[in-house]
Amino acid sequence: MGVSAPVNLAAVAADLSDLWNPRVVGRINEMLVKVARIEGEFVWHQHDDTDELFLVLSGELTIALPEAEVSLGVGDCYVVPRGVRHRPSATPGTTIALLEPAGVVNTGEAGGDRTAAVDQAI
Amino acid sequence: MGVSAPVNLAAVAADLSDLWNPRVVGRINEMLVKVARIEGEFVWHQHDDTDELFLVLSGELTIALPEAEVSLGVGDCYVVPRGVRHRPSATPGTTIALLEPAGVVNTGEAGGDRTAAVDQAI
Repeated sequence: MGVSAPVNLAAVAADLSDLWNPRVVGRINEMLVKVARIEGEFVWHQHDDTDELFLVLSGELTIALPEAEVSLGVGDCYVVPRGVRHRPSATPGTTIALLEPAGVVNTGEAGGDRTAAVDQAI
Repeated sequence: MGVSAPVNLAAVAADLSDLWNPRVVGRINEMLVKVARIEGEFVWHQHDDTDELFLVLSGELTIALPEAEVSLGVGDCYVVPRGVRHRPSATPGTTIALLEPAGVVNTGEAGGDRTAAVDQAI
């Protein structure tokens, strides 16, 4: 079998110019590793069928939850449990890695014009 | 529901003193996020039922594969596909994050005295 190359998550994410448009950079079993550039406030949404892992690569990410707010700096990792409404927001220059199964829609059940193409490659 | 705290992967890994003894720091669906301090050469082994993701938090990790060798620095991420024999080795001061399903034995099918407790908490 061929050997796929290592991916530097922060470097790949730094090359992205569009916002809130996650790109797939790897796969482990049924889960996809994605990176995204984000800034400002996203929409409230939830994923009923899966947890979602966030890892901050640069900048600052805040995840608003129904009864709390979680603040994440570089290297911080947080898992939003399935079925929990959340609204990510981020300072300019923020990049993140995401881990979630293939097929997850970024806006969850909320939909709307912030919905990105599903499982888009880099 | 309660809000579990964010985890800084590099900071948690830096506090580990024992080698090749992965600790669980989070869970996403059926997968566990683990951190470990590693140094020197591990044993050749494979995991027949799952891919395994490595993310370098500090130091340098080399993954020997049957017909190649992959070198990873800080922030580099690599997935060893299921069924592929591999032998990690690392420079002193190396810490990593791992992603794999619950129940995976660190030495895979090889066993032996490098086998750590399965899914041990921090």
